[in-house]
Amino acid sequence: MAALEFYYDVVSPYTYLAATRVEQIGAQAGLPVVWRPFLLGAVFKATGNAPPALVRARGAYMLRDLGRWSAKMDEPFRFPSAFPINSLLAQRCLTATPDAERPALSLALMRAYWADNQDLSDVDVLAALVGPDRIAAAQTPENKAALRLVTEEAVQRGAFGSPTFFVGGEMFFGNDRMDFVLDAAQRAAAT
Amino acid sequence: MAALEFYYDVVSPYTYLAATRVEQIGAQAGLPVVWRPFLLGAVFKATGNAPPALVRARGAYMLRDLGRWSAKMDEPFRFPSAFPINSLLAQRCLTATPDAERPALSLALMRAYWADNQDLSDVDVLAALVGPDRIAAAQTPENKAALRLVTEEAVQRGAFGSPTFFVGGEMFFGNDRMDFVLDAAQRAAAT
Repeated sequence: MAALEFYYDVVSPYTYLAATRVEQIGAQAGLPVVWRPFLLGAVFKATGNAPPALVRARGAYMLRDLGRWSAKMDEPFRFPSAFPINSLLAQRCLTATPDAERPALSLALMRAYWADNQDLSDVDVLAALVGPDRIAAAQTPENKAALRLVTEEAVQRGAFGSPTFFVGGEMFFGNDRMDFVLDAAQRAAAT
Repeated sequence: MAALEFYYDVVSPYTYLAATRVEQIGAQAGLPVVWRPFLLGAVFKATGNAPPALVRARGAYMLRDLGRWSAKMDEPFRFPSAFPINSLLAQRCLTATPDAERPALSLALMRAYWADNQDLSDVDVLAALVGPDRIAAAQTPENKAALRLVTEEAVQRGAFGSPTFFVGGEMFFGNDRMDFVLDAAQRAAAT
């Protein structure tokens, strides 16, 4: 069955905004959403891509742009004190989370970072959000390998940033392409 | 009086798409559009920004994305054989063009490059489109300085790419932010 695949890393602000409505897009099209945590830093390294905010003028503009999006979408947004952070442990925790719980926990982590200024690279902060058992599960060799595999697969499919969506063979990048994602999802659901 | 300022370089495909509807946005809001040709290469150099297609995976995706936009907007689009090109002489020609003729000539140049595969870095191609007198006018020291000034001004105001829009003090980047541009233009027209 067709699905809407959502590759994401909590470290990206546009990904947070996209995550708040990806289930709505899936529901509107009648496609299940598959949440695939991956590691953005490794995607950048593999593709030679870089965070836009490294260019100072882009970074300044991004703050304004994020404010416009959060106002338009009516989502709470507060740029965190610590940015960027190392999202490795957070992404491993999401990888170790059962499928059925992953969307809600992913959103909880992103809201903690992007609305409540909680530093997800701090293991104590993270443990309070996901529980100590999940931290332990995150650090098994099997789980580490699973996150690596999803990340490598995303790069092989053409991903270079977060959020990245797939509907069948069609790839889409960015919170600002979710209209295209919806179109493709509706076409896929109709076939 | 408030205006919608449009900084653009013909070398950018998303700029072409934006240019086909910027006048419609201005008309919808009731604001005049001021067309400001600038030199994207100089903006990149000044800001440290780089063309997205330099990252191979981004470049491949950009082609798909441009196809989606041109289909959505119902604008003819054909990726040119020569890309990127040196747009310096073309931008100088547009600088040397009287205000009243600039929008139409700018669109003509962008359609020639982005729909009809005409290499605007070729002086003969360009002369056939703008006329030999305009080529001569483009190359005066005063006109060269005028293009440099507009480019430097854009960078000072925060621009890092093309297309860039200003409505009062608010800056917007990209064809995919024209909904925000329209909102801001309508607010500016109402005050």
